[in-house]
Amino acid sequence: MDPNELAKAFVEHYYSTFDTNRAGLGNLYQEGSMLTFEGVKTQGSQNIVAKLTSLPFQQCQHTITTIDCQPSGPAGGMIVVVSGHLQLAGEQHALKFGQMFHLMPTPQGSFYVFNDIFRLNYG
Amino acid sequence: MDPNELAKAFVEHYYSTFDTNRAGLGNLYQEGSMLTFEGVKTQGSQNIVAKLTSLPFQQCQHTITTIDCQPSGPAGGMIVVVSGHLQLAGEQHALKFGQMFHLMPTPQGSFYVFNDIFRLNYG
Repeated sequence: MDPNELAKAFVEHYYSTFDTNRAGLGNLYQEGSMLTFEGVKTQGSQNIVAKLTSLPFQQCQHTITTIDCQPSGPAGGMIVVVSGHLQLAGEQHALKFGQMFHLMPTPQGSFYVFNDIFRLNYG
Repeated sequence: MDPNELAKAFVEHYYSTFDTNRAGLGNLYQEGSMLTFEGVKTQGSQNIVAKLTSLPFQQCQHTITTIDCQPSGPAGGMIVVVSGHLQLAGEQHALKFGQMFHLMPTPQGSFYVFNDIFRLNYG
């Protein structure tokens, strides 16, 4: 699969899952995975899902503006950088965000998220 | 060295070099390094420096807002994600940007930039 197509498919899957069934994101992380959400680090699939499902908003919708990807080295990983807007239910203005995923291959030929760094872009 | 301190030192070195002696950034990249600048990919230290020194602005100043870092895997690499503002000489308003660096260790105990993805954050 073309890396750009793979990155786009991952991004669409990630945010549609986030916006409709956040607990389902657990399948995308493993025990060594790390999330930094607004500067706060969380490690491991279970802890990451607990963090994501306890964020102080229930309904949201992500809109993607840009997707960039590069191979991350000989281990077959891929870095995906996303920018976009996050609309929270009941809020007038969407928030801008940037997010970076480092995807690593699984033995089954799929990918999981090893690194995940999320930041809102204020002002 | 503490990873957060290392990331901060790298970021300060990178942007102070960018703002004062852009051609000096060549030492931070190697032949396998890749830059994606506003969606355009460039590979290799020499090509990356040619790209950075030919950008349509000469004088600029980066101001950093956030730095996040995580270890990128068993190869000893480190992912550094930066957000900040870029002030161009003669322009009234600073531009917001986001940049991701994947640093890989050298045999000499230092780091080089393997992946570099830069995006301006418009509107």
